[in-house]
Amino acid sequence: MRDLSKSNELLSLNTATIKKQWNLEQIIEGCARHQIGAIAPWRDQISECGLDKASKLIQDAGLRVSGLCRGGMFPAKNNAIFNQNIEENKQAIDEAAKLNAECLILVVGGLPEKSKDIEDARHQVEDGIANILDYARASEVPLAIEPLHPMYAADRACVNTLKQALDICDRLGEGIGVALDVYHVWWDPELKTQIERAGKNKQLLAYHVCDWLVPTTDLLLDRGMMGDGIIELKKIRKWVENAGYNKTCEVEIFSANDWWLRPPEEVLEIVISRFHSVV
Amino acid sequence: MRDLSKSNELLSLNTATIKKQWNLEQIIEGCARHQIGAIAPWRDQISECGLDKASKLIQDAGLRVSGLCRGGMFPAKNNAIFNQNIEENKQAIDEAAKLNAECLILVVGGLPEKSKDIEDARHQVEDGIANILDYARASEVPLAIEPLHPMYAADRACVNTLKQALDICDRLGEGIGVALDVYHVWWDPELKTQIERAGKNKQLLAYHVCDWLVPTTDLLLDRGMMGDGIIELKKIRKWVENAGYNKTCEVEIFSANDWWLRPPEEVLEIVISRFHSVV
Repeated sequence: MRDLSKSNELLSLNTATIKKQWNLEQIIEGCARHQIGAIAPWRDQISECGLDKASKLIQDAGLRVSGLCRGGMFPAKNNAIFNQNIEENKQAIDEAAKLNAECLILVVGGLPEKSKDIEDARHQVEDGIANILDYARASEVPLAIEPLHPMYAADRACVNTLKQALDICDRLGEGIGVALDVYHVWWDPELKTQIERAGKNKQLLAYHVCDWLVPTTDLLLDRGMMGDGIIELKKIRKWVENAGYNKTCEVEIFSANDWWLRPPEEVLEIVISRFHSVV
Repeated sequence: MRDLSKSNELLSLNTATIKKQWNLEQIIEGCARHQIGAIAPWRDQISECGLDKASKLIQDAGLRVSGLCRGGMFPAKNNAIFNQNIEENKQAIDEAAKLNAECLILVVGGLPEKSKDIEDARHQVEDGIANILDYARASEVPLAIEPLHPMYAADRACVNTLKQALDICDRLGEGIGVALDVYHVWWDPELKTQIERAGKNKQLLAYHVCDWLVPTTDLLLDRGMMGDGIIELKKIRKWVENAGYNKTCEVEIFSANDWWLRPPEEVLEIVISRFHSVV
């Protein structure tokens, strides 16, 4: 396993972690000041800052972009909306290319309005990705399917296990892999096996960390800081690195009642300290 | 598929659904009045009523017992507590036998205090079940592992998919199967395949229904009435019945801010109406 204790070079900060306190420019400046190696911005923040300006700020700060958040959200109640979703994803690919992002994160989407048909939603997801894959390949932007926790299956992502995501990757071929977020997959009895499988096929494109709190009081906005919950972070990172993953560990914490309320400098310092000690 | 529209014979009421409004005696009386076929009581309610009295009331009312809730909760931080858990489960088996319950539901338990080791918790679960299985067989009480939604993996049950539960059943042999609750498994991409597998081995011991609301506002106490959410109830029941399941559909709804606040007669009437139309 790599030694993360002495440098921030392999740390990436997902900007959602301090998005309530700082805008993108402030986050870039904060990351640079702490010699953090990479950043993972969200498209709304890029848009607010301006793509050209954001790209230049990130480059000037010496930050890599571990991923752009996010494409996906494919399933639609009719063809017109589905096609809009495809166009939106192509735009996200353009932005990822401009930012030199190592991948475009795909949160694939849940059930369309008024639908209960999860099988259909899953077909739409695969169709949607197939529709943008050549465009992504031509733009040299790897697509990273992020399997989301099953509690988000209805409203955010109907791809809910690493196995399911890898099955899609295998059917679609080159240019697509997975983003593994411990929050979504830590419970999976097949996690180790499927990480090994992903490694063999070079499909591990990103690795995200935070923690699962007990109790968890909100389905979306109660993620924990690494070390404060029950996820065996080092065990999972060992599996991931044994499978050949050699890129950043990206910290992504949505926390309405704790971390989003704290001073951003304090959050950054604790992120860094936990990255060194428990990730 | 069986026609559920004309009778309540195949309906079972899990007593948790109206536990805030009525005690066990009142629930039994209400079920009998509506010609509901079966009931699934909780052990705390049995204890409050008294086992002998509860058994007689249920029998006199002509109700079957589709399951007793619940055994399980095996993982422990030390051997002494683990052994207490085994004894507690044997007592639950005795109660299930006395009540002529069709199965004892096992909510297997999550991580022991201060532990993050889910692999160890899963081993303890299997050890625990192995420890009580002969006792259950001798008492002619089938044990039903209920795989719980992955959002409960840390604190309630570390068995989180039907496949994982069936793997345990296959390793342990006769006298054990699964309780399938749509709330916990509806999202699973392998659900159909694993239901077929369970059917072949006669391992489907109970079938529970409610619904998954969008949005879901609480991890534990925001279950929906059948038809109010996004679960494809008829599709899943068809799979279950095609796999040979021929027992009750048990309604189990934990709902702190809606159904637990309504008059119990109203809840019963809506349960029955939805059972006839959407289950």
